[in-house]
Amino acid sequence: MSKNLKYYYDLMSQPSRALWIFLEKTKLPYEKCLINLGKGEHLTEEFKAINRFQKVPCITDSQIKLAESVAIFRYLCREYQVPDHWYPADSRRQALVDEYLEWQHHNTRATCAIYFQYVWLRPRMFGTKVDPKQAEKYRGQMEGTLDFIEREYLGSGARFIAGDEITVADLLAACEIEQPRMAGYDPCEGRPNLTQWMARVRESTNPYYDQAHKLVNKFAQDTASKAKL
Amino acid sequence: MSKNLKYYYDLMSQPSRALWIFLEKTKLPYEKCLINLGKGEHLTEEFKAINRFQKVPCITDSQIKLAESVAIFRYLCREYQVPDHWYPADSRRQALVDEYLEWQHHNTRATCAIYFQYVWLRPRMFGTKVDPKQAEKYRGQMEGTLDFIEREYLGSGARFIAGDEITVADLLAACEIEQPRMAGYDPCEGRPNLTQWMARVRESTNPYYDQAHKLVNKFAQDTASKAKL
Repeated sequence: MSKNLKYYYDLMSQPSRALWIFLEKTKLPYEKCLINLGKGEHLTEEFKAINRFQKVPCITDSQIKLAESVAIFRYLCREYQVPDHWYPADSRRQALVDEYLEWQHHNTRATCAIYFQYVWLRPRMFGTKVDPKQAEKYRGQMEGTLDFIEREYLGSGARFIAGDEITVADLLAACEIEQPRMAGYDPCEGRPNLTQWMARVRESTNPYYDQAHKLVNKFAQDTASKAKL
Repeated sequence: MSKNLKYYYDLMSQPSRALWIFLEKTKLPYEKCLINLGKGEHLTEEFKAINRFQKVPCITDSQIKLAESVAIFRYLCREYQVPDHWYPADSRRQALVDEYLEWQHHNTRATCAIYFQYVWLRPRMFGTKVDPKQAEKYRGQMEGTLDFIEREYLGSGARFIAGDEITVADLLAACEIEQPRMAGYDPCEGRPNLTQWMARVRESTNPYYDQAHKLVNKFAQDTASKAKL
């Protein structure tokens, strides 16, 4: 089954972390190919030949070049021997995982990333100023998504997003929701279901979860320390 | 295999059209459940009980309530006897379809819909004014996506987005790309590959493609007529 799998990633990217945790946890054999986004390594012609979208994460193996984290998750679960719970073969359960994976693009992913980029990343990278009204608008959209997850996905006592076992949906969701912590926002505050679920995802995937979030945790701590000054 | 499949849709919605064409073309047995978005029928408590996201398209059958067009396509291809080409069982080909299905959320779908809504829908529904600079910005983002499809997906002589046979990716893509025609934008102009591919998708799925786009074509014609005055 060995396919000479190469994984291109940067742990500052949310879906890169999700896939990295998955690869480590399932012990799939793969070659680590770091692409430093901060240094623009994804914008080179060399990388464009690997991924025409010029983004991370992506993979190559003997038969394919593949981008888009959700497509990669599905491919890996199909091609390699990974425990069924990650992406259930059962049609109904798989459909519920799929529904989250598609929904998250314009919800969890979009709203958490936009808030993080506007408040934290862009001012640091491009020196842009933060308009408090615009920040409030983005924060409101993110909170709408987080509240929906708290209520609709986790409100009925479910341990994970698509049932009682962890799936790739939980990995992608948790890694997105960690991101705004760097901008000083605590997604868990006032959301008991989300708090317990985040702890469950972390426990189920440690030590890899913490390893993947090392830099995120450092930046979150820096932001928190500055806020106290 | 009959599962009492109910399909909730409005043909003004791009993914609703894609799924409708698919259901008609594959002759799956299903019950038509029209949800008029213009009348706000998706916002009722009754519909919320069917789909907590309060959007179309969605389905119910004996075992599941399911939203998100991409998740629905996968579910139908898995549960029903549809020709393999729509969503290939071959792992590599399926991965390429999946890559487009995930990519399109923030590209084809987002950019064509945002332009259409800003220039055409919102002024009609809410009386908003169109700022030419903002319209130009949205148009540029849409054209970036369309040029990418012209060059990267269709540039190497491929007949369809993921190879030589039509897949669900083509249906979703074409239905999104039809939408800005109502706002007076011709996506085919200056894009010969896209032009031929759109014709191919239409030919492969008619008479259902034209039936699904009846209202879109009427509005596109109205806009074109007004532009000539």
